[in-house]
Amino acid sequence: MENNLSKQINFLRQRSNKQLALHMRQLAAPKLLKEAIDYSILGSGKRVRPILIYLVVRALGAEIKHADKPAAAIELIHNYSLIHDDLPAMDDDDMRRGKLSCHKKFNEPIAILAGDAIQALAFEVLAEANELSLSTRISLIRELASAIGASGMIGGQLLDLSYEKKKIQLAQLEYMHSLKTGALITASARMGGLVAGADAATLSLLTNFGSALGLIFQIQDDILDCTGNEDQLGKPKGSDEKKGKATYVTILGLQEADRRLQEQCARASDLAADLGPDGRILQELTYFIATRKH
Amino acid sequence: MENNLSKQINFLRQRSNKQLALHMRQLAAPKLLKEAIDYSILGSGKRVRPILIYLVVRALGAEIKHADKPAAAIELIHNYSLIHDDLPAMDDDDMRRGKLSCHKKFNEPIAILAGDAIQALAFEVLAEANELSLSTRISLIRELASAIGASGMIGGQLLDLSYEKKKIQLAQLEYMHSLKTGALITASARMGGLVAGADAATLSLLTNFGSALGLIFQIQDDILDCTGNEDQLGKPKGSDEKKGKATYVTILGLQEADRRLQEQCARASDLAADLGPDGRILQELTYFIATRKH
Repeated sequence: MENNLSKQINFLRQRSNKQLALHMRQLAAPKLLKEAIDYSILGSGKRVRPILIYLVVRALGAEIKHADKPAAAIELIHNYSLIHDDLPAMDDDDMRRGKLSCHKKFNEPIAILAGDAIQALAFEVLAEANELSLSTRISLIRELASAIGASGMIGGQLLDLSYEKKKIQLAQLEYMHSLKTGALITASARMGGLVAGADAATLSLLTNFGSALGLIFQIQDDILDCTGNEDQLGKPKGSDEKKGKATYVTILGLQEADRRLQEQCARASDLAADLGPDGRILQELTYFIATRKH
Repeated sequence: MENNLSKQINFLRQRSNKQLALHMRQLAAPKLLKEAIDYSILGSGKRVRPILIYLVVRALGAEIKHADKPAAAIELIHNYSLIHDDLPAMDDDDMRRGKLSCHKKFNEPIAILAGDAIQALAFEVLAEANELSLSTRISLIRELASAIGASGMIGGQLLDLSYEKKKIQLAQLEYMHSLKTGALITASARMGGLVAGADAATLSLLTNFGSALGLIFQIQDDILDCTGNEDQLGKPKGSDEKKGKATYVTILGLQEADRRLQEQCARASDLAADLGPDGRILQELTYFIATRKH
């Protein structure tokens, strides 16, 4: 990873954390609900999706302050999805980012309600982004709502659960991930385009770039679940395998999974290059995500 | 109930059902998720909130077709909240509207995900209401997101759960219900105002009217839980009491609960009269809700 990108990523992660902290300070809620929401939002998240939207906005020559609220909204959605994903009825995960998951720290009803409230907050934040035109705000809300709904992220989670302990084909795994993680990552790239007023051709390029990035993210996730360091991961290793979940590694083996990761990196890199000279930072982000350790 | 209002309510309920059916036909989702969402949305709901927004829009002299999507969005939100409310970790209700609740008919993860997807769909429907101006759509999204979030409906559900098996005061019960049921009913009245382009004074009047209507709805709910007919209710009688939940009846007794119901009816009726001659239909709606049998 180049030092320059590393600095930018740290800067943008801090910017995202500050924005989230601001929204948390403004949020009124009954005490326990507020605590559970703060606990889940303020922490050590990687902030990959906010960083992606910031970098796309910058690559397209727009001001990153215009991405502050869309970035916060995307990260709120990501965090609500993690809270619900960790529930006993879902993935039943006790740990998240090196600390107790929301329902273990509080309880199950609070975790369900915290997730529900955070989803609503994401749309409130977008609707209140007065620094963006009404038309941009509506486009962003449509994009986000569609990406996280029944034919997007939530549809992917349903497939993920229904595939558990089943022998599935690579095509099914890819389709499931294109919804479960891909839809929100693609939406992040496209929302960057919408903030920057990108034309249809650029939005289409960003869709393809986001889709490659989503695949890279997921393949590397599966590789880390098999080879990673538990302290860095913040959760037990091999947890997917224990749950009888198919992964790129269990279906393809480590070597072939890595080959496909490299293939997608080349694809994403070519797409980023098509954005012009400022696309270079997105090429660097691609390799950063492909080589992350947690 | 006057025959005229009865006809209008049936007409508007059918209109709301048709709109919801349309959105369900357009919704793509993995099979089981789609089935669970259809099962929860298409059915015998009373459609009180859509009817309320339609009647407000009509009372303010605007065209009810402009309320179609906001009405659908509100009913979607109401239904997602019922699905999550019925979950084992929450109210643990097996029956809803005379049939199995979503998690009993399908399973718990599907019910969680169906609720999540329906919330997202509500915002998508509002964002795509092309027959409304961008400014109206953004106002509606802000109104709805704020009403159903941590300081609104979800905050109320948290309080409801945290009050279970506790002795609470009337003021706590009223505050809890003003959030849990009141926020969405008030938002329905206000969203009618926003669709019709109401001024600040009218919106403020609609806030007060919605708040009275929310109280009426809840007090009558508690009275029916104590005195109602199980076949008409579609769920077992006395279920609140069995769960150790305080109600207007357990705190005040039946007679005093009914007196307060009448008091709120008078208040709502006065407010509706202030809307001018066309407010009469909202007065009739008030008495319809106050005397409903399920």
